[in-house]
Amino acid sequence: MTGLTHLNDRGEANMVDVTEKSVRERSARAASCVRLNDEAFSLLVAGNIKKGDALAVARIAGIHAAKKTAELIPLCHPLALTKVEVDFDLDPDEGCVQIQTFCRLAGRTGVEMEALTAASIAALTIYDMCKAVDPGMEIGPTRLLEKSGGKRGYWESGVSTKMEVDP
Amino acid sequence: MTGLTHLNDRGEANMVDVTEKSVRERSARAASCVRLNDEAFSLLVAGNIKKGDALAVARIAGIHAAKKTAELIPLCHPLALTKVEVDFDLDPDEGCVQIQTFCRLAGRTGVEMEALTAASIAALTIYDMCKAVDPGMEIGPTRLLEKSGGKRGYWESGVSTKMEVDP
Amino acid sequence: MTGLTHLNDRGEANMVDVTEKSVRERSARAASCVRLNDEAFSLLVAGNIKKGDALAVARIAGIHAAKKTAELIPLCHPLALTKVEVDFDLDPDEGCVQIQTFCRLAGRTGVEMEALTAASIAALTIYDMCKAVDPGMEIGPTRLLEKSGGKRGYWESGVSTKMEVDP
Amino acid sequence: MTGLTHLNDRGEANMVDVTEKSVRERSARAASCVRLNDEAFSLLVAGNIKKGDALAVARIAGIHAAKKTAELIPLCHPLALTKVEVDFDLDPDEGCVQIQTFCRLAGRTGVEMEALTAASIAALTIYDMCKAVDPGMEIGPTRLLEKSGGKRGYWESGVSTKMEVDP
Amino acid sequence: MTGLTHLNDRGEANMVDVTEKSVRERSARAASCVRLNDEAFSLLVAGNIKKGDALAVARIAGIHAAKKTAELIPLCHPLALTKVEVDFDLDPDEGCVQIQTFCRLAGRTGVEMEALTAASIAALTIYDMCKAVDPGMEIGPTRLLEKSGGKRGYWESGVSTKMEVDP
Amino acid sequence: MTGLTHLNDRGEANMVDVTEKSVRERSARAASCVRLNDEAFSLLVAGNIKKGDALAVARIAGIHAAKKTAELIPLCHPLALTKVEVDFDLDPDEGCVQIQTFCRLAGRTGVEMEALTAASIAALTIYDMCKAVDPGMEIGPTRLLEKSGGKRGYWESGVSTKMEVDP
Repeated sequence: MTGLTHLNDRGEANMVDVTEKSVRERSARAASCVRLNDEAFSLLVAGNIKKGDALAVARIAGIHAAKKTAELIPLCHPLALTKVEVDFDLDPDEGCVQIQTFCRLAGRTGVEMEALTAASIAALTIYDMCKAVDPGMEIGPTRLLEKSGGKRGYWESGVSTKMEVDP
Repeated sequence: MTGLTHLNDRGEANMVDVTEKSVRERSARAASCVRLNDEAFSLLVAGNIKKGDALAVARIAGIHAAKKTAELIPLCHPLALTKVEVDFDLDPDEGCVQIQTFCRLAGRTGVEMEALTAASIAALTIYDMCKAVDPGMEIGPTRLLEKSGGKRGYWESGVSTKMEVDP
Repeated sequence: MTGLTHLNDRGEANMVDVTEKSVRERSARAASCVRLNDEAFSLLVAGNIKKGDALAVARIAGIHAAKKTAELIPLCHPLALTKVEVDFDLDPDEGCVQIQTFCRLAGRTGVEMEALTAASIAALTIYDMCKAVDPGMEIGPTRLLEKSGGKRGYWESGVSTKMEVDP
Repeated sequence: MTGLTHLNDRGEANMVDVTEKSVRERSARAASCVRLNDEAFSLLVAGNIKKGDALAVARIAGIHAAKKTAELIPLCHPLALTKVEVDFDLDPDEGCVQIQTFCRLAGRTGVEMEALTAASIAALTIYDMCKAVDPGMEIGPTRLLEKSGGKRGYWESGVSTKMEVDP
Repeated sequence: MTGLTHLNDRGEANMVDVTEKSVRERSARAASCVRLNDEAFSLLVAGNIKKGDALAVARIAGIHAAKKTAELIPLCHPLALTKVEVDFDLDPDEGCVQIQTFCRLAGRTGVEMEALTAASIAALTIYDMCKAVDPGMEIGPTRLLEKSGGKRGYWESGVSTKMEVDP
Repeated sequence: MTGLTHLNDRGEANMVDVTEKSVRERSARAASCVRLNDEAFSLLVAGNIKKGDALAVARIAGIHAAKKTAELIPLCHPLALTKVEVDFDLDPDEGCVQIQTFCRLAGRTGVEMEALTAASIAALTIYDMCKAVDPGMEIGPTRLLEKSGGKRGYWESGVSTKMEVDP
């Protein structure tokens, strides 16, 4: 490989040609995390009990963002996602919300960016709801956990993740 | 304060009423970071020299995302931003791209979410351009550095940031 | 069936997995209605004669909305519609505008929501154009008339509709 | 009045000039209703208990749609909403979900269309979640309940509404 | 002036700061033109008589595009347009459709890009409707005719335009 | 052919049915041009050297617009583009920026509108960056250069174009 795939030899950006790639099942799983102070964490937990909407708002934001990925990331191809899932785990020991996302489709290119965008926007939505209490929250690390279906087959990060998600 | 401002007493989300807040100058600065392996970092540096578009793509993505914030974060108010800036610093010692964003407006509510959304999407765009080389990149911490103009006045995080931006 | 398909066992929303569903021709027809007072109805009729744009505006709004459905309905899959039609019938006896929409595609999931969204937004657009004259207009019933192509085959509502549309 | 305000003398649509109108506080309240069969109604009730996301999804969809109104209704002015609220009432006697929305801003034109669009999209989202159980659901009547702040002052529909909303 | 206003001294793009600019009435008028062959021109004329939607579709597309300008032109500020008008003149002598647009608002920056974007998208919409008959159509010149309200006051192009529009 | 394909016999617009058309490789190439005065041309050249973002901004805007075509042109079908390229040539002899775009996909309908929309928005973005120096710039002719993959096979305009693009 001699350079970034999204830039041509003159360094100019373009949406790379995937016309000839085969339509196959592709999926990706990504994660992010929001670290809150104690007061914000307690309010978020409280906001999620008794039918509170707190995490539902972030979940819908993540799903919606996955569908908007090609509008947000300039060189991403428009994709017809066939599955989006956003899960949360409130971790009182670490004072953080763990986020995991999963995207899937039958298409010509992978869905890593969709999974990562869903995780990022879900995290920002949690930040938005808690920022009056704790503007110092930190988001991250946001990263890809695994992907499958590309020409290089299955890939997974070596990072262990504490969060368990029952699909 | 008895709970999250975005949820009412029944735990239901709503876009809070800012009609009575005064129109004033408000601004926010946020940061994020993308950590790459050596190969990806070198290619990104190369992709930015000789008129390469690499960081320009991420900068435009960040500015565009700032303008789309109210579409992405469900309870954010639509705002007429009057200034958006996205800056990068390629840090060879840490093998990472530092990102700083700045948003400003004359309006009824703050622009923290706009600055954070710009930083997040700029980071994801860098990930997108480098992912063929290094799918294991990590994004974060994404966080607010400072804000001004709200009813509680100036706020800054205690975090020192290495990056210098000349406005 | 033990619950709503869009919620998992923990009650959490997700965009359900249709990756394995087969690509087939699917279509749906929906209807809505706007009931106006006499003055508004007369002006709408007048606004449609002599090359007036009144119903054309509503028709374009409905077609556009069909294409935006997955952005508006959080758990809808993005779909590549291959046909959208929006028809109106000005019914002087009832003082109302009958709306019928038809959507079609070759895809993995049905287009009911696209047809219903087109009908709803077309109705709201008529409301918008007439609201200065009659803010008391009523929209509805908005409903599905028929659909085909899903795993349960053809479905039609038992409701007879007065409106005749020549495709 | 000689015709529809949105059409000029040649019958051509345009976005009418509100530049000279004064910036003032304006608000609107709208309603809609989704009528379900017994099975769907029971599942929706069940989907809302035990922290289920069912109505939260519809609420977020309605808030988001209010912000997208000027993109959906061709002749609507872009507005900076300062408050959006979407409320539901599960009415077992009627087998329906009552929907009420409230929008507010300080601006040059009213927010009726925003309130009506929020109600319509919230209703469609409920339809979407329940359609596998009951494709025959009916939406409506969708209508304006009251508005204030326009040049003709306060307006309310004569329709009594059963639903009580505590602001 | 030492350079392009949208680039800083390092050549980096940003959305320039207009926070301190005063809110005043600003307007702009732009024009474009679509040149068709005889067959396409005749069909367009025919498509516009007898209540045909042809030009109404292009008009609505132009109005909608004006509202989307800040989403399309990366460094444009989001603006709350208070007036958009799109007019057409079918010119049989030249075999072309003359397009004129007019935008207005009370805001901190001008609306030239909104008027030009409306004209461009209206022209493309006419192209779309006629392209099966004449793929060789040419669009342009697209240009600003006049603007007012900026710090340099009224500006008009020296170009005379044949088209007469009655506001 | 008896009329415009996008209008039915009653002159009403609709998104024509392409469900039965076969999925095949389709591509289109379009061009536009921005003519600037000497001062603006010199600044644009300067803004593009030394890593300046000027043309990168316009390139990203064009790629983004190609993906938004079905949102902008009312009767266009949503398409999953698999390749978008936007190229520029600064022509000092003519004092203009030549723009060429190329779009490709495997789908049921052609991508002429996507290529033309990319060229138009790229041109408008250049206008935006230079308008403070030269509001009198002219855009055009915007036109299709060639397309392939449709039922009528390969088409090319007879127009010679000076610009050379190395794919």
